[in-house]
Amino acid sequence: MTTNLSIDPDRLWRTLMESAEVGRTPGGGVRRLTLTDEDKAVRDLFARWVRKDGYALTVDRLGNMFARREGTDPTLPPVFIGSHLDSQAKGGRFDGPLGVIAGLEVLRTLDERGIKTKRAIEVVNWTNEEGARFPPPMLASLGFSGGADVAWIEDRRDKEGLRFGDELARIGYRGEAPVGGRPVDSYFELHIEQGPILDKVGLPVGIVTGGFAMQGMRISVQGETAHSGPTPMMLRRNALVGASYVAVAVDDIGWRYAPEDGKTTVARLDLRPNLPGILSDEADLWIDFRHPNKARLPDMIAEVEAAVAESARRSRTRIEIAERWSFGGLVFDAGLIALIRETAQRLGVPSMDIETQAGHDAYHLTKVCPTALIFTPCKGGISHNEAEDIDLASTVPGVNVLLHAVLARAGAV
Amino acid sequence: MTTNLSIDPDRLWRTLMESAEVGRTPGGGVRRLTLTDEDKAVRDLFARWVRKDGYALTVDRLGNMFARREGTDPTLPPVFIGSHLDSQAKGGRFDGPLGVIAGLEVLRTLDERGIKTKRAIEVVNWTNEEGARFPPPMLASLGFSGGADVAWIEDRRDKEGLRFGDELARIGYRGEAPVGGRPVDSYFELHIEQGPILDKVGLPVGIVTGGFAMQGMRISVQGETAHSGPTPMMLRRNALVGASYVAVAVDDIGWRYAPEDGKTTVARLDLRPNLPGILSDEADLWIDFRHPNKARLPDMIAEVEAAVAESARRSRTRIEIAERWSFGGLVFDAGLIALIRETAQRLGVPSMDIETQAGHDAYHLTKVCPTALIFTPCKGGISHNEAEDIDLASTVPGVNVLLHAVLARAGAV
Repeated sequence: MTTNLSIDPDRLWRTLMESAEVGRTPGGGVRRLTLTDEDKAVRDLFARWVRKDGYALTVDRLGNMFARREGTDPTLPPVFIGSHLDSQAKGGRFDGPLGVIAGLEVLRTLDERGIKTKRAIEVVNWTNEEGARFPPPMLASLGFSGGADVAWIEDRRDKEGLRFGDELARIGYRGEAPVGGRPVDSYFELHIEQGPILDKVGLPVGIVTGGFAMQGMRISVQGETAHSGPTPMMLRRNALVGASYVAVAVDDIGWRYAPEDGKTTVARLDLRPNLPGILSDEADLWIDFRHPNKARLPDMIAEVEAAVAESARRSRTRIEIAERWSFGGLVFDAGLIALIRETAQRLGVPSMDIETQAGHDAYHLTKVCPTALIFTPCKGGISHNEAEDIDLASTVPGVNVLLHAVLARAGAV
Repeated sequence: MTTNLSIDPDRLWRTLMESAEVGRTPGGGVRRLTLTDEDKAVRDLFARWVRKDGYALTVDRLGNMFARREGTDPTLPPVFIGSHLDSQAKGGRFDGPLGVIAGLEVLRTLDERGIKTKRAIEVVNWTNEEGARFPPPMLASLGFSGGADVAWIEDRRDKEGLRFGDELARIGYRGEAPVGGRPVDSYFELHIEQGPILDKVGLPVGIVTGGFAMQGMRISVQGETAHSGPTPMMLRRNALVGASYVAVAVDDIGWRYAPEDGKTTVARLDLRPNLPGILSDEADLWIDFRHPNKARLPDMIAEVEAAVAESARRSRTRIEIAERWSFGGLVFDAGLIALIRETAQRLGVPSMDIETQAGHDAYHLTKVCPTALIFTPCKGGISHNEAEDIDLASTVPGVNVLLHAVLARAGAV
């Protein structure tokens, strides 16, 4: 295939900016929490694009959307290009949408040049990648990969107690197609790095070789309500104090592992009753920690467990690790990594190997088929923030690498 | 006046238990947050009692309710007996209602015995003593004492942004009477101690000589949202980490002052966006600290200010003390203290002098008239908790002291 086949940068940008209008925030980001009206609006927009360009749209029981450009041999498993259109509560315009729209741009480029492929190519919008409203993240690709039952996923609840399944039906995206269970040739995902490395070293493409090992925990604190005034310090069992000890300790652990590029996060703290005049008796703290070396994660876990015990002692509360989950610590498909590396070289696109620290739907797709993840730079490494931004010129090379790698895999006829 | 004049313990208890049914929680407490439907229900119940017994009911613009038993000389300023019927989110059955119902029991006892008084006696239910829904606490007695404008109070908002004035009108308790501005002879409040001292030493009555000095603060933390995964520790400005440093430091300060009976509280923490996958960029932390010696409070404040600066440095966030408020550090009226002490002695009720650490409407009434506060024991010192409990036999002596002291002040004819 000729190396001068290229996507259309202006069309890519226009489409990205059209997406950025949906759920736009005053701060210049987007708010498209999963299964909200804004999520419905961006899904409707995607469906309009797909139908206008003549691709077949399928929606499965979990709301995953598949835009299929047929191949010359419909019996062959398709090549997937996927990412997500949902966002954080105060998210950026590119985290997710870039990958879906890059996929659409690949299809449009092939159409424009009249290029047929042996295998079908499907562009996928995965439901609830962010998990900001319905934890855990990457929930519907987990379902697609067979890692969780559809019924269990449908029963996840948001902070208000609303069910995933009900909200999916409410916005009209509970589709008819079964979830997963069909052969997929390969999965490609293009995503902004969400970290500072590519931007700093000035390279347009990161070939993701593997993922940081990540361990998440919900830590539950049990104290006692009491009057904030007369209760002597000796009689206080304040759940907020217990959770704060854990939060500070977990942050400290992150700093201790920072020289090895380990990191920890205290992300969310829910307190009950959380009112002035009374000590809270219940707290839930969500934390996670990540390390490039899977073998070091147990050391971090041991430090967190020790910190939990010490925090309980100092705050005179009961603290337990109520839930644990993990992802990452994996390597992507060697064949696809080689294909992407060779494609980048052929196109003269400078690249580097990199690891992902964030979770991506690609993690779950590794259970289904050979999977690859391509990173493009984001300015200053800023992400999950309304100020998240990209430079079009530094993004186009990555999308072209995606185009050519997918084309190689789907087989030009 | 004869010493064998006594309130009716059974009637007192029945009335308390009738009150305890309103907003009853599964845990055996009550939930009657100010200006909710439960607050309306307990106000309706109080109004039924008052009308049934033939007292005149007045409601002022802030919803304060006054049940007046007329005196033989209606031109004389009345004696007030007051407390509150609202509760914490998970509150007990006696914090507040005991004082209002004890006042009602005083009136009923006088009726039963056919005792007339020169001065009218008014039993008051103050709106929003707790401040759990509309901070600050003791809001409507503050208005009555002229310490805040009615319009400002009406504009206070709850967590959902609902206005105090609108919610008051919604439940039908925005009365016609002006707020304050009329002479009051004296104010008596009976309240459970909300601390362990009386219960521990086995005395039924605490004569409150003054109040702990209390300083409250809202501490505001400004960080930056970022992805919880790839963002290096060096680039993180997590508002939850900043708030946790402050919370731990404030708790430590409480322990340092505990030998002098000083104490600190971290009561409420609000985080935005407070979701998994993203660092929170905003936090508000409500703290307070109290000391029996007013002169020591500035030392505590200085330590908190230093802790705030250090927490900002360690968490790489901006932290400021956004609001400050204080109460207490006062002494009650010497004449009324002497009257209560002498009344207790005359009735053979053992008592001790004590200081209040919690805020009470009595604080604000000191600006209006001579004011007295009487404590009765609560089991284990537990309060602002569904398990809050009292023993009737240890409570009746205090209510009898209230009866006789009020009668002395109102003047039996």
